Amino acid sequence: MKKINKAVLAFSGGLDTSVILKWLQDSYQCEVVTFTADIGQGEEVEPARAKAKQLGVKEIYIEDLREEFVRDFVFPMFRANTVYEGEYLLGTSIARPLIAKRQIEIAKETGADAVSHGATGKGNDQVRFELGYYALQPDIHVIAPWREWNLTSREKLLHYAEQHGIPVEMKKKSGSPYSMDANLLHISYEGRVLENPATEPEESMWRWSVSPEKAPDAPEYLDMEFKRGDAVALNGVKLSPAGLLETLNVLGGKHGIGRLDLVENRYVGMKSRGCYETPGGVILLRAHRAIESITLDREVAHLKDDLMPRYAALIYNGYWWSPERKMMQQMIDASQEKVNGWVRLKLYKGNVIVVGRDSPADSLFDSTIATFEDDAGAYDQGDAAGFIKLNALRLRIAAKRKY
Amino acid sequence: MKKINKAVLAFSGGLDTSVILKWLQDSYQCEVVTFTADIGQGEEVEPARAKAKQLGVKEIYIEDLREEFVRDFVFPMFRANTVYEGEYLLGTSIARPLIAKRQIEIAKETGADAVSHGATGKGNDQVRFELGYYALQPDIHVIAPWREWNLTSREKLLHYAEQHGIPVEMKKKSGSPYSMDANLLHISYEGRVLENPATEPEESMWRWSVSPEKAPDAPEYLDMEFKRGDAVALNGVKLSPAGLLETLNVLGGKHGIGRLDLVENRYVGMKSRGCYETPGGVILLRAHRAIESITLDREVAHLKDDLMPRYAALIYNGYWWSPERKMMQQMIDASQEKVNGWVRLKLYKGNVIVVGRDSPADSLFDSTIATFEDDAGAYDQGDAAGFIKLNALRLRIAAKRKY
Amino acid sequence: MKKINKAVLAFSGGLDTSVILKWLQDSYQCEVVTFTADIGQGEEVEPARAKAKQLGVKEIYIEDLREEFVRDFVFPMFRANTVYEGEYLLGTSIARPLIAKRQIEIAKETGADAVSHGATGKGNDQVRFELGYYALQPDIHVIAPWREWNLTSREKLLHYAEQHGIPVEMKKKSGSPYSMDANLLHISYEGRVLENPATEPEESMWRWSVSPEKAPDAPEYLDMEFKRGDAVALNGVKLSPAGLLETLNVLGGKHGIGRLDLVENRYVGMKSRGCYETPGGVILLRAHRAIESITLDREVAHLKDDLMPRYAALIYNGYWWSPERKMMQQMIDASQEKVNGWVRLKLYKGNVIVVGRDSPADSLFDSTIATFEDDAGAYDQGDAAGFIKLNALRLRIAAKRKY
Amino acid sequence: MKKINKAVLAFSGGLDTSVILKWLQDSYQCEVVTFTADIGQGEEVEPARAKAKQLGVKEIYIEDLREEFVRDFVFPMFRANTVYEGEYLLGTSIARPLIAKRQIEIAKETGADAVSHGATGKGNDQVRFELGYYALQPDIHVIAPWREWNLTSREKLLHYAEQHGIPVEMKKKSGSPYSMDANLLHISYEGRVLENPATEPEESMWRWSVSPEKAPDAPEYLDMEFKRGDAVALNGVKLSPAGLLETLNVLGGKHGIGRLDLVENRYVGMKSRGCYETPGGVILLRAHRAIESITLDREVAHLKDDLMPRYAALIYNGYWWSPERKMMQQMIDASQEKVNGWVRLKLYKGNVIVVGRDSPADSLFDSTIATFEDDAGAYDQGDAAGFIKLNALRLRIAAKRKY
Repeated sequence: MKKINKAVLAFSGGLDTSVILKWLQDSYQCEVVTFTADIGQGEEVEPARAKAKQLGVKEIYIEDLREEFVRDFVFPMFRANTVYEGEYLLGTSIARPLIAKRQIEIAKETGADAVSHGATGKGNDQVRFELGYYALQPDIHVIAPWREWNLTSREKLLHYAEQHGIPVEMKKKSGSPYSMDANLLHISYEGRVLENPATEPEESMWRWSVSPEKAPDAPEYLDMEFKRGDAVALNGVKLSPAGLLETLNVLGGKHGIGRLDLVENRYVGMKSRGCYETPGGVILLRAHRAIESITLDREVAHLKDDLMPRYAALIYNGYWWSPERKMMQQMIDASQEKVNGWVRLKLYKGNVIVVGRDSPADSLFDSTIATFEDDAGAYDQGDAAGFIKLNALRLRIAAKRKY
Repeated sequence: MKKINKAVLAFSGGLDTSVILKWLQDSYQCEVVTFTADIGQGEEVEPARAKAKQLGVKEIYIEDLREEFVRDFVFPMFRANTVYEGEYLLGTSIARPLIAKRQIEIAKETGADAVSHGATGKGNDQVRFELGYYALQPDIHVIAPWREWNLTSREKLLHYAEQHGIPVEMKKKSGSPYSMDANLLHISYEGRVLENPATEPEESMWRWSVSPEKAPDAPEYLDMEFKRGDAVALNGVKLSPAGLLETLNVLGGKHGIGRLDLVENRYVGMKSRGCYETPGGVILLRAHRAIESITLDREVAHLKDDLMPRYAALIYNGYWWSPERKMMQQMIDASQEKVNGWVRLKLYKGNVIVVGRDSPADSLFDSTIATFEDDAGAYDQGDAAGFIKLNALRLRIAAKRKY
Repeated sequence: MKKINKAVLAFSGGLDTSVILKWLQDSYQCEVVTFTADIGQGEEVEPARAKAKQLGVKEIYIEDLREEFVRDFVFPMFRANTVYEGEYLLGTSIARPLIAKRQIEIAKETGADAVSHGATGKGNDQVRFELGYYALQPDIHVIAPWREWNLTSREKLLHYAEQHGIPVEMKKKSGSPYSMDANLLHISYEGRVLENPATEPEESMWRWSVSPEKAPDAPEYLDMEFKRGDAVALNGVKLSPAGLLETLNVLGGKHGIGRLDLVENRYVGMKSRGCYETPGGVILLRAHRAIESITLDREVAHLKDDLMPRYAALIYNGYWWSPERKMMQQMIDASQEKVNGWVRLKLYKGNVIVVGRDSPADSLFDSTIATFEDDAGAYDQGDAAGFIKLNALRLRIAAKRKY
Repeated sequence: MKKINKAVLAFSGGLDTSVILKWLQDSYQCEVVTFTADIGQGEEVEPARAKAKQLGVKEIYIEDLREEFVRDFVFPMFRANTVYEGEYLLGTSIARPLIAKRQIEIAKETGADAVSHGATGKGNDQVRFELGYYALQPDIHVIAPWREWNLTSREKLLHYAEQHGIPVEMKKKSGSPYSMDANLLHISYEGRVLENPATEPEESMWRWSVSPEKAPDAPEYLDMEFKRGDAVALNGVKLSPAGLLETLNVLGGKHGIGRLDLVENRYVGMKSRGCYETPGGVILLRAHRAIESITLDREVAHLKDDLMPRYAALIYNGYWWSPERKMMQQMIDASQEKVNGWVRLKLYKGNVIVVGRDSPADSLFDSTIATFEDDAGAYDQGDAAGFIKLNALRLRIAAKRKY
């Protein structure tokens, strides 16, 4: 076991990270700095202070990172219409790079030589945390307790907690049998009955949204305004990034929007079943595609679509801080300069329906050309003959050779 | 004007293609063979026979191509989870190659030296028809009346019809102010008020589906079975490809599923606004992704996702019969060998919700590995440390160089 | 024929563009502005002035664009290691966008309402010129004489020249039976005996390089320095972009480097046989890949390689001024920030051999890790076990299913 | 240490694998089956029998796999014009999957429960061997001695050999200070002075080729015939796959062809400098591209080029036996059906110059269309106007918006 002086722990204040805190102190005989962030998970972060103090922590960081999270992570990702494996909006994946970055910054501020997290050895989150740590501070030492200790069952963990005076009522905190993760973009559920992909999840599992069945019987219209690819106002009211996403979450949750039940492929090699609620994200994605549909050039849009799955996999796999993700982001951001305008949506029982979009300054939709009526010469139909003939030329030559 | 002996016309029996028929006879002084296909557009095809006869046609082809359409065109396309520009399910695009193929076959049977269609010079369909013609018969002569004649307005067309004794009541056929196209996969609407993308379409436009608001208040569960990537049974009942898609259309239409309102980029260079109803297709796509989620290897799935937008653009642009589309199809079809199993869906007011999936023989989901519980050594968490360290190595080296 | 007031003609001073000049004046009854650029084609541009004057041209533009050509077109393209269809270095393609841009600028300066060029209707250059014109000035009128006039054979052209007093000795200008194009990046040959791809070109065709057989018997070493992906010095001497490429051309030509004989696929649909000499470009490409090999992160390099063929096709097809090319360039340029250092090359009888490369400030090559000797713990071989195990996990699960 | 009964060792007969053999017997107390393959490395394989016997091995496999190697591994890879990172022809990478496959087959035949190899923990080969093992037999146990034992230096290895009676003169076998690997496709050099990428390798290192300087002063012409993408004859003489590649190696080596000196990115995360001789491969690659240039459709060729770097990385990284590589191979092989014909090459002092190519039955080169002379209407230049106008339409619309 490497000699460590001080470690910065991503500390939620829950049972698991409290046990980790104690275990770090005991096993490594090192000082622990706790870092607790509000990224919109919907739980108070201040109680973590008392818990950390109680366990003898001297340096306690508690921060509200919601605006940074949405502005610098969620929004850049949505500029690419990012979806992993056709469905998953990457709610967990996109939060880890921010946590990793702040842990490394705090390590530098406090002179710590290690960082630690509570992710297990089976999941993607360990990879996302640690690739972030290493990319930002290549010589940092990483402690992943779940891969190191011998607390291999829930019972052993509880026993350890009791032995070391860690309040066990914490385990009831979530009141949920599922392994959950939440931030401003989503809440996720894994484990237990979900481990059988043939089985429908119980209605009681979902926390952020009503079911479509229980959503209001009347639809609600919503206007969203975009500037350079980011949503900036709802129904004419300017909102901060986090404020806007929070509002969308409320609206989506109310209308039964954003539930997802899927089997995904983890970076560490196995398939895993997860359920997600992303009410605001689903609305935002649909609206962003709609504003792009009138403001992006066709080939720019297609290039983005062609690269999107790869960009999504980079984020899913934990490569947010990699040079290739940053390189792709340059291209994506460059594409968004003219993505300005508004989109009108209708929210109703799980549906997000685009009913209108316009961009007075930047629309590339030209009705004088597209019209079925007389276009007064805006488009010469005769041009199509040559267009087709030359596009067909190679096909005709090949056909003569029975290709 | 090139000397033509005989032309095979894609003939719907409606006003436009009736005028074209007459115009071909008069302008080219050629014999015309009519070809009318039932591809599930929901209109009788037999009436076209009388109309053709009345206009002096001697060789009249009327065929039911519904099974071939779904089996050899729709299903292969769905194996790739094909969506154009993130949303459009290519309902019109996928029907044209079949029409083109039959026209060329009929031209060979009847000794015709030309083919003709009723698509305008502004749209994608002219390209899809003609690239098909040329790829299958490189020396065929193509007549595209809308690009050749001087009937540049609706009035002139009607006037021509009246002058030549073509029953004008046909123009009321659709009873719709929109330019429409239908087949077993979808019905589309373009033109008129839709030419302003800021405006919501009227409820009365939609023909195949009720609105989500008017859909039943009770959800309906549906089991779909897949064999080698194609849907083969619903609720335990084996169905032919066309029978299955027809059933899905009824179910989807009943539950308000499959409406789409978008602005798309045409191959000929302009943006165009279209509304689509694809009730069965939307259900099928969601189910296909779900069965793939447990039966496809991760990297196979990602490779498919990476190439899908390109494959979709090929079909949208009319390259179904191109060597590159056929080459991609080889890869796509090869990926589907193990895509067997069933998916359970819940249909409710516009929503298609996957609630279960299993593949007893071919599932790659291994709960003994993925479990949050004790996995009895199926997975060694320690392996993750090395996995992360080596994946991070290049990031660490770069970080030292302030990359 | 559209009424034109003034047209800006890309004017080489040779026979063809002289005939075009006269034809424009006569057919369109318009004023013609000539534009002649030195882009390194190796011919004097000043003589074009007298010829234009003789034909009554009042506004004559003669410009040396060599530095702009290399700095803003050739170098950005080489940052991507751009090669079309595995072999062609795009020498002709990359010059057209610059000519198009200057023609449009001159049209604005002189109040011209049209532009014209001397490219035929079969080649790629018409596309490259005209896509440039339209992208930079969407309402410009384009006159492509070869597609419009009835001078469909060489005899008719000569006859027209004689009739209109255009000095026919010009036709002997090149002294070559080939259709040729030259600029600082390359010289190309097409037509005549080359139209049979089975036949070897005659040695006498080549103009810029000696054959490898006739090159010096002693190799020559060359050091090239790079800053942000661009070559900036040779053998320790700083050079301007054009100066550097000129020097490389001399060196390459001397050592028999850069000949290429291929069959390529034109954008307009046919295959075409071309021979090229790109002596400096071949050296530069090899050196650029070598400096990237030690300064680029692996995944950045792979992303560039994955997109390169698409970027090359954009340039080949004439889309330099398109939004998608500009978007890709953002990404490519962003990748080059650390591409600094030097490469040592050995030039010998057609070979460009990389014999050394270093980047004192930015090398990502870490011999302490890569060494076969004792690495003092820089790399833990045990990490590889976990790395392999997790990368193999999905393969093992699939294998159990006989995937 | 897991209990092993019998292990199949990839055994070269050299010092390293002899020590491994002994170490396996001693450490695992298991029986060892040796497997020695002739894949064209240029050394006798029979002497391995005596060495294995001397160390008490009862089951000894010695096999000539040269034909299988070229036919089922090298040739399929060359159908894709496969090159890693722009330069490396994957000589080592492509041999490992074959060795892995035979080891697994032998394990099944002999009832062995483990396999073992002599690759170190720093390189790519361990990954290639082990991914192959796991993909073909998911439950096999893998022993990688270099990652397990404490023989961490050359001295310790020699000491162990002496202690255990393993003839140490073997270490002189190669007479080379480099780490080398050879098979019918190439020979590679790594380590020692090569660990400084700034330094030119000594001439004495190269073994398979003369330097261009020492190559004959007279060029040699070579005709190569292709069937379905594979080379089948040289100068009119049909040859087996291995026979053909052997002949090309002799020819290439004689003419100084195929040397390569590069820095590559290993899958395990570091950059590494390697030198390679691939005389036959370089000739074959150039010829294959040439025959494709006249027989492949443009878009098929471009699709292959777009995917090639990814396919190359799969092979480099050891994923030959993965479902995604097999899926890509289906597409690549499908593209080769018409790749028939011949290519004429000129070999001279390091140069492979294509001087002619033809495919009487399958050429898509149509000189009646491409000609600069009168084409008798084969191509209508007027078509180009419409082709350009419609391709420009989106650019013009965007330009009006100052995109």
